[in-house]
Amino acid sequence: MPILVVGSVAFDAVKTPFGERERILGGSATYFSVAASFFTDVRLVAVVGEDFGPSDEAVFHEREIDTSDLERVSGRTFHWSGEYGYDLNVAHTRDTQLNVFADFKPKLSAAAKETPYLFLGNIQPQLQVDVFEQVGARLVAADTMNYWINNTPAELAEMLKHIDILVINDAEAREIAKEANLVRAARRILSMGPSRLVVKRGEYGAAMFTRESYFATPAYPLEEVFDPTGAGDSFAGGFMGYLAATNAVDEAAFRRGIIYGSVMASFNVEEFGCERMRRLTHNDINARFRELRVFSNFEEAEMPPF
Amino acid sequence: MPILVVGSVAFDAVKTPFGERERILGGSATYFSVAASFFTDVRLVAVVGEDFGPSDEAVFHEREIDTSDLERVSGRTFHWSGEYGYDLNVAHTRDTQLNVFADFKPKLSAAAKETPYLFLGNIQPQLQVDVFEQVGARLVAADTMNYWINNTPAELAEMLKHIDILVINDAEAREIAKEANLVRAARRILSMGPSRLVVKRGEYGAAMFTRESYFATPAYPLEEVFDPTGAGDSFAGGFMGYLAATNAVDEAAFRRGIIYGSVMASFNVEEFGCERMRRLTHNDINARFRELRVFSNFEEAEMPPF
Repeated sequence: MPILVVGSVAFDAVKTPFGERERILGGSATYFSVAASFFTDVRLVAVVGEDFGPSDEAVFHEREIDTSDLERVSGRTFHWSGEYGYDLNVAHTRDTQLNVFADFKPKLSAAAKETPYLFLGNIQPQLQVDVFEQVGARLVAADTMNYWINNTPAELAEMLKHIDILVINDAEAREIAKEANLVRAARRILSMGPSRLVVKRGEYGAAMFTRESYFATPAYPLEEVFDPTGAGDSFAGGFMGYLAATNAVDEAAFRRGIIYGSVMASFNVEEFGCERMRRLTHNDINARFRELRVFSNFEEAEMPPF
Repeated sequence: MPILVVGSVAFDAVKTPFGERERILGGSATYFSVAASFFTDVRLVAVVGEDFGPSDEAVFHEREIDTSDLERVSGRTFHWSGEYGYDLNVAHTRDTQLNVFADFKPKLSAAAKETPYLFLGNIQPQLQVDVFEQVGARLVAADTMNYWINNTPAELAEMLKHIDILVINDAEAREIAKEANLVRAARRILSMGPSRLVVKRGEYGAAMFTRESYFATPAYPLEEVFDPTGAGDSFAGGFMGYLAATNAVDEAAFRRGIIYGSVMASFNVEEFGCERMRRLTHNDINARFRELRVFSNFEEAEMPPF
């Protein structure tokens, strides 16, 4: 089944301890759609400015991502500039220029409105609700961030009532629930609307909560984390892309989705931007899936009699 | 097979957001031996002062821990006072009084010297080597801490040459290796002596490295973490206790050991001191082992054709 993603397309300037780049094609919708495109047909809704050129668009076209709903307006594309120290878990924002993204009102074509899977990237919660209401999706997931949690809590609460799955990080889960313990925070969030909560934990992996089940996986162990930008969105792309491809809604499928999400994130952070993902093959992805099974496997046991 | 633990017995004053206690029986050897005692015979080498009384000793006796090598000297027992905020991963030390522990020179009986499994709790690395050289153990594991890493690096390096397994936390692994990336840090530590490195990650679980293998598990998810003191030592007690009980040295046994370690740590943090562990049954432990299998299980898959 095809999937629709609404979010940002951006040009990022990124500095890490391992290098620096002035203009990387980034943004939540970019990372999500490239990751999801290995699993299913992806349609992108976002806005770009006049500085978005053919070589940028080629990134989407080479992955056969449908850009008919990518709006082009006068002005400059969203720009984020950030830096990471040796603790790659923490991004230090140097500059944010919303540019054309400041007035982004997602415009959906008739085809977009009929997409059965929907991912609402990190944008204003009210816009997320607007999109949700126009799309007759059978499964809807959303991301958000601390800015919306703190500044638009009512809109965020409204958004949570509509979606099936919330995909956020540790700190965001604790902030939404105002609760330091993650298990209790998850219970609280699940009482606010979504039937499933996925918590991204960076180098520690991911956890998934429903009212009846719990699943957790360690991250794929990497010797070289080069640029963590986009890890969360490529995770969400692998997760939702797999679910859309299989059209399954059982717990086992969601768990495999978490593993595919972990695999896509692990590749994404190995190079700047989408560079590593652009060279991926299905075999690369399957190989890391199998490795994660080996890394986390242990046998049944009973305590020895004593 | 029986196991010998050398470490501290202490009286701790602990304050957490959930309560406060002035005098808790703690110390690395206490947490380790109580956890390991559910799996095998445990012999304890430590020192206490005149304030160590029958009700303290009863904690060991009720678990049938052999205290014949527990030395009693004049003076007061080691005292640690600490506080935790809502981030229970970080202990703030208010006071440390080494007392009788300052001059601790482990004295081993003939029986102690013949114990086949040995755990060197967090004491001066030179003392760890002294103990190692007196005991003909077939499997030796050790813990250490930032103080020894920074102040006695040569002694620590010497200690690492002798042991089979190093059991430490994330931050300690990065400090020993002077390397931020955990996978590279692990490789460096494995080049310094031990054939196996176990990394404790608190609420994120644990990871285990050898030169040929990698294993990681999420932690048992808890809604109530009451007092994290002793989590690492109860983990080590479950891990080494299981290995000693089964006398197995294959990768599958080590992995089950990591799970038993995680289970013991999860119980330990639910109440002050060893209180929760003292009431445990084999059924409680087996139940959480099985739950951790359910929480981390996912099926094989290939990417859907696309």
